[in-house]
Amino acid sequence: MIYADYNGSSPLLTPVREYLKKRLNTDLYANPNAIHSISQKLSRGIEKCREVIAEAVGCYPDQIFFNSGSSEGISHIFHSILDQADAGKKIIITSPIEHSVIPNALAYYEAKKGFTLKQVEIDKDGFVQIASLEKLLNENKGKVAMVTIMAANNETGVIQPYVEMANLCRTHGVEFFSDTTQLIGKGEFNFEKSGLDYAVCSGHKLGALSGSGFVVVKEPPKLSPLVFGSTQERGLRGGTQHYLGIETLAIAMKDFSDNAQKLKALEVEKLKFEADIKKAFPEAVIVGEGAKRLAGTTLIGYPGIHGQAVQIELESHDIFVTTSAACTDNQPETSKVLKAMGVNDQIGRGVIRISLSYSHGEKEYSAMASALKAAYTKLRKIQSF
Amino acid sequence: MIYADYNGSSPLLTPVREYLKKRLNTDLYANPNAIHSISQKLSRGIEKCREVIAEAVGCYPDQIFFNSGSSEGISHIFHSILDQADAGKKIIITSPIEHSVIPNALAYYEAKKGFTLKQVEIDKDGFVQIASLEKLLNENKGKVAMVTIMAANNETGVIQPYVEMANLCRTHGVEFFSDTTQLIGKGEFNFEKSGLDYAVCSGHKLGALSGSGFVVVKEPPKLSPLVFGSTQERGLRGGTQHYLGIETLAIAMKDFSDNAQKLKALEVEKLKFEADIKKAFPEAVIVGEGAKRLAGTTLIGYPGIHGQAVQIELESHDIFVTTSAACTDNQPETSKVLKAMGVNDQIGRGVIRISLSYSHGEKEYSAMASALKAAYTKLRKIQSF
Repeated sequence: MIYADYNGSSPLLTPVREYLKKRLNTDLYANPNAIHSISQKLSRGIEKCREVIAEAVGCYPDQIFFNSGSSEGISHIFHSILDQADAGKKIIITSPIEHSVIPNALAYYEAKKGFTLKQVEIDKDGFVQIASLEKLLNENKGKVAMVTIMAANNETGVIQPYVEMANLCRTHGVEFFSDTTQLIGKGEFNFEKSGLDYAVCSGHKLGALSGSGFVVVKEPPKLSPLVFGSTQERGLRGGTQHYLGIETLAIAMKDFSDNAQKLKALEVEKLKFEADIKKAFPEAVIVGEGAKRLAGTTLIGYPGIHGQAVQIELESHDIFVTTSAACTDNQPETSKVLKAMGVNDQIGRGVIRISLSYSHGEKEYSAMASALKAAYTKLRKIQSF
Repeated sequence: MIYADYNGSSPLLTPVREYLKKRLNTDLYANPNAIHSISQKLSRGIEKCREVIAEAVGCYPDQIFFNSGSSEGISHIFHSILDQADAGKKIIITSPIEHSVIPNALAYYEAKKGFTLKQVEIDKDGFVQIASLEKLLNENKGKVAMVTIMAANNETGVIQPYVEMANLCRTHGVEFFSDTTQLIGKGEFNFEKSGLDYAVCSGHKLGALSGSGFVVVKEPPKLSPLVFGSTQERGLRGGTQHYLGIETLAIAMKDFSDNAQKLKALEVEKLKFEADIKKAFPEAVIVGEGAKRLAGTTLIGYPGIHGQAVQIELESHDIFVTTSAACTDNQPETSKVLKAMGVNDQIGRGVIRISLSYSHGEKEYSAMASALKAAYTKLRKIQSF
């Protein structure tokens, strides 16, 4: 089996599984906020995990707030910024290629809280145009509550100019959130060097337990609770901590840090795979090809061949991919992200997303190349649209 | 070892551990929202769990929305009700004995959103006075946005008249939320029969994985997202589902349902234990003794002996208890809940909370009685205050 949907979710990492097998035989289960020694051990464990993760992410431990994952993190950050924004700051700048949680959250603030949305321009690779952001910031001086533009796209893997965007926003005194869900654990990232005000992470994208994650906040006092509680996470995220998730997050983050150098080799193999397919099928299109992308992500389409058909063919070879984003791929239509990039339906309805991790390489790409070639050869005889 | 802090958190149940050990050897990890067969299996698994839980809770599957636990559930319900409340409905009725998440959340709505809080009266056992709620509802006709009064108290275990309160609120056309965190999994509960509009559950209180939980909503369209996302949980709670947590929740809820008849025996043993202690130490006070309480909860104090000292003595016998609520027991003061009940500091600073589950009985209570007697005998010679 080749699981090639890491942008959707990662299977539990091997070291995480090994850890959990041992962990299940312990008696270390309690409310980390109680006073007895089991709780105190758990509580110290959480703080140790926070240090390990801070080291891996490039921030201070007290800039990390554990939660249930990126959707909560994004909702929390938006709430913190927008619920307290000055009355005169009613503009939010975003992009047309965000993960659906962003437009869905912003639609609420637009419809219910009187904010106005403005979008930056992107090029044909789905790469955000810095000049466009600068123009919007200049045109709306003093009126912008927040800029929210992702760090790496979940469908194409295109890595956005988040450092430059952070610089620009800082110059303009505007809060900048960049959705780092697809970058952390899949690409080089250092919070402090990035200049970001906020970042988010979902544990399940890295092979930690589902339901775990965190936000990173440059200036923690700016955070206000979305999930109320007691003193957990310094009063800024209530709820008994998902300590098992946090423990596995630390393992996964450390595993990624220790293996980050493998990303280069992964990318080399991916580019060979893409060249191989394009050589065999010159009509195939790799979306976002012209931009820097995540090492293990390929979004590829063949004109007139339906993505779901390709996905099913690959699955018959025990290869698991998706069509565009996991969250929306039940829709047999060109995704909104691709539409915004100007990708036509011939390609847009035909794409599959292949996403691997740093633990993969030549072996997986070679098997996928064979299977994908067989799929295209078979399906182009019976083009579905 | 006797772990007696089930009101704080439950260790993973044995069937949950056994399930997870097997589960860790599978390849069933993916984003449940993707289109390939692994995801579809996970997605069907989630729906199967929803059915199992609905059966155990006494509701329809589509009334359940999975989340990270009760703190999120409560924040979500408050957001859903209060963000959409009519402009003229600015009163919230609550009680002085709620878990800290409730007053902390309400403080936000009071300070930032213009709501006014009113509190019902309680008796010396911390039992909510229905007449007081009725009076408040009558005095504030048409102005009450929500009533939020818990179903069972986390410190004393006192079970509140939530069915009567639900009836009253329905008669007055007022939304009623009852914090069921301590009741579900520890006492008899049926959502439909209860008449509640909303209920919440935290998986870790039942021996499921941390970071899991759900809300139950009588009329789901009343819910509006707190955590934004895609189509997960019918668009009402975003974020890739904590599917491992959900799977263990179903196991834990079923285990509780299958064993609910054991609660009666647990209560009998608890009452024997309490009688035994009071016979040996007539000065000891069991807080909330006059009211119906959760089968496995005892909050007991000895005048002038500090709760933390007792807790430490018991821990030297490998017995793990807390002083009042897990979330606040680092404070060596009488808890707010006990203060509201009129418990004086002589007792209030001296209480320990013993909370067991349906898997316990005579053996644990007998060992705890010996240890607690030894602790009181030792400590009353050196009373700390």
